[in-house]
Amino acid sequence: MMMSQMFTKTRREAPADEVAKNAQLLIRAGFIYKEMAGVYAYTPIGLRVLTNIIQIIREEMNAIGGQEISMTGLQNKSVWEKTDRWSDEAVDVWFKTELKSGSEVGLGFTHEEPITNMLTQYIDSYRDLPFSVYQFQTKFRNETRAKSGIMRTREFIMKDLYSFCKSQAEHEEFYEKAHQAYVTIFNRLGIGDKTLYTFASGGSFAKYSHEFQTITDAGEDIVYYDPELNIAINEEIYNDETIALLGVDKSRMIQYKTSESGNIFSLGTRFSDAFSLTFKDEQGVAKPVIMGSYGIGPGRVMGTIVELLSDEKGIVWPESVAPFRVHIVCLGNVDSEEYTRAKELYDALIKHNIETLFDNRSELSAGQKLGDADLIGIPHRIVVSAKSITAGGFAYKARTGDSEEILSLEQLVQRFA
Amino acid sequence: MMMSQMFTKTRREAPADEVAKNAQLLIRAGFIYKEMAGVYAYTPIGLRVLTNIIQIIREEMNAIGGQEISMTGLQNKSVWEKTDRWSDEAVDVWFKTELKSGSEVGLGFTHEEPITNMLTQYIDSYRDLPFSVYQFQTKFRNETRAKSGIMRTREFIMKDLYSFCKSQAEHEEFYEKAHQAYVTIFNRLGIGDKTLYTFASGGSFAKYSHEFQTITDAGEDIVYYDPELNIAINEEIYNDETIALLGVDKSRMIQYKTSESGNIFSLGTRFSDAFSLTFKDEQGVAKPVIMGSYGIGPGRVMGTIVELLSDEKGIVWPESVAPFRVHIVCLGNVDSEEYTRAKELYDALIKHNIETLFDNRSELSAGQKLGDADLIGIPHRIVVSAKSITAGGFAYKARTGDSEEILSLEQLVQRFA
Repeated sequence: MMMSQMFTKTRREAPADEVAKNAQLLIRAGFIYKEMAGVYAYTPIGLRVLTNIIQIIREEMNAIGGQEISMTGLQNKSVWEKTDRWSDEAVDVWFKTELKSGSEVGLGFTHEEPITNMLTQYIDSYRDLPFSVYQFQTKFRNETRAKSGIMRTREFIMKDLYSFCKSQAEHEEFYEKAHQAYVTIFNRLGIGDKTLYTFASGGSFAKYSHEFQTITDAGEDIVYYDPELNIAINEEIYNDETIALLGVDKSRMIQYKTSESGNIFSLGTRFSDAFSLTFKDEQGVAKPVIMGSYGIGPGRVMGTIVELLSDEKGIVWPESVAPFRVHIVCLGNVDSEEYTRAKELYDALIKHNIETLFDNRSELSAGQKLGDADLIGIPHRIVVSAKSITAGGFAYKARTGDSEEILSLEQLVQRFA
Repeated sequence: MMMSQMFTKTRREAPADEVAKNAQLLIRAGFIYKEMAGVYAYTPIGLRVLTNIIQIIREEMNAIGGQEISMTGLQNKSVWEKTDRWSDEAVDVWFKTELKSGSEVGLGFTHEEPITNMLTQYIDSYRDLPFSVYQFQTKFRNETRAKSGIMRTREFIMKDLYSFCKSQAEHEEFYEKAHQAYVTIFNRLGIGDKTLYTFASGGSFAKYSHEFQTITDAGEDIVYYDPELNIAINEEIYNDETIALLGVDKSRMIQYKTSESGNIFSLGTRFSDAFSLTFKDEQGVAKPVIMGSYGIGPGRVMGTIVELLSDEKGIVWPESVAPFRVHIVCLGNVDSEEYTRAKELYDALIKHNIETLFDNRSELSAGQKLGDADLIGIPHRIVVSAKSITAGGFAYKARTGDSEEILSLEQLVQRFA
């Protein structure tokens, strides 16, 4: 993409009311726009990052057999009354509105209820199980405080997968597959080494649930980690009983501030009982379906990546989610030799399907352009200047590297193709 | 995809309260699920169709330089007060809710206001123009009646593109590009020959806007069409003045019932004035930006395709949007020769990246399976039966064809690769 055609601009300062580092950097670099507290729009380069994150999650959900669907934002009161989760006393993050007829409707903050209810139409027999469905769908949560940038918002896309099994053993097998898929996802997203598989409260149908807690000072959670056993425990269940059960050693535990990047839950028959979601087994006996739910917030993960991987100059995107792989910075006006050479390189990279941002703006200084490149954080930067041409080519530097190397057009194409 | 793993099932009857043909067929075939009146979820095969429609629109929007973004559902009251569109008297389709603080927020039914407001942060100079942005974003509209299936819903994805130009001439040039892009889109979607470029009311800043009206009895609009001049006029402006201005001949006009599949609007400076969205021209003089808006509802188009192209047996998807290209119907149980041959064909098609649905279900009759294939409406059907094997291969029939032909595996792969 030509930067002269991109409508966003970088900003020196973040908005005064924005306290979270992730939102400050993402707003300054032009990835997001703050509509109001806890509500953010995504600009073209922001949407590219979010889409890359979503695609990685989608591929791994498909790999474990997930079928993609799309449920609705508007929620039917009668469906939620079946699990006693309609009232504001039971759930304090509901947004509610009403139809012209006066009937109340809610905005979905999660989708266990409507999905379980829908599946009563489709599940009859043991032959229909097991399976899992997932979606990337907008959730609405009426958060009291929304001060963590895009890590806790009032409106956000969530990947939520739900599994449906015939037995506890079948459920546990899928649960472990989902666990491994999540490990793969966080590795691909570049935050795997900072993300701890964490025991957390299991609710009414399981001893534990599991959270994927990413170590960051911007997080809202506390976990205790035993590096020897590679077991982390959420503060909420960090007590003598849990310590004994999991066999960790209290003297080794390291306390971390973390942000919950994902979670996986055994739901047992809580929802299938409420909606009479049953199947007939091979003997024709009706049995309740065993369910699980598995969440990841792509926006929150994007914020966590920024918190974790940025430096004093700006954002540092991992290759897998970066809005572009290569950033060409041309230090010459449109009629210069530098521009001609930069455009040749740009055309060659595009021809090889290498996603490239070309800073072809003519009204800015070299310092402004290089500062923007560091702020935006694309992994590979190529400067085209009188100096680089004299030296025999293009000045390449990784976003995280310290030194430049001079490479030819052919060498660059070969490196990225 | 193996049909045994698909969680949806076909139904003999549509829900009693569903009066629209498009929703009746889509529910019976398992493409959508009715959450409540005017609110539908998309199942895996339904989401595949919707995604195909979206991708065609996205490609054509990118081709005219559109930059994809994603605005928010939650809407800031103060932004909408600037154009006097906040009150329920001015706009009767608002859904409104409130934050914990008691502040009212709305759910976006369109996005001119927040986009214009956002761009005041980014547009300064004539160098920043022209450009256009678009999104596929969920709109919420509190419709009094919602009886047209997925053609008029309370929650739907809309593609809305907004253009920003320096002058009326520049705007008109883009407007014509968008017109041509829409013609391409409706052709690719398979309803181009039934879609009329229609003059409609232009609002305060233009004599006319233009609608893409698709001829269908399920539509809610009336247009008058002059086949000689290829000009259609919406009933709302079909009067002597319009007839004279456009030079059509009243005696030739044919009246059609139509559904609005898309529209393009010149907005002039209505929104840029309200938000002071200006740019400095080459002389440094501040001028208002000239805007346009361009909408298509992918869900409505999906409903219109079903209304237009279905027959007494079920849906007839155009190749471009079909959930799969090929539907293999195996008339034999898992341990049969038929199954072995069908699975070989399935594997060969998948290997060649040909999207294929494989009806490998063993508990159903041939009649049920063939009926399901017609109802679901995939363009190419291949039956594997004892009879087809005896005849030397596979029985191929187009969804719209009358007769079968026997083809070998190699011939089939060649036909679809």
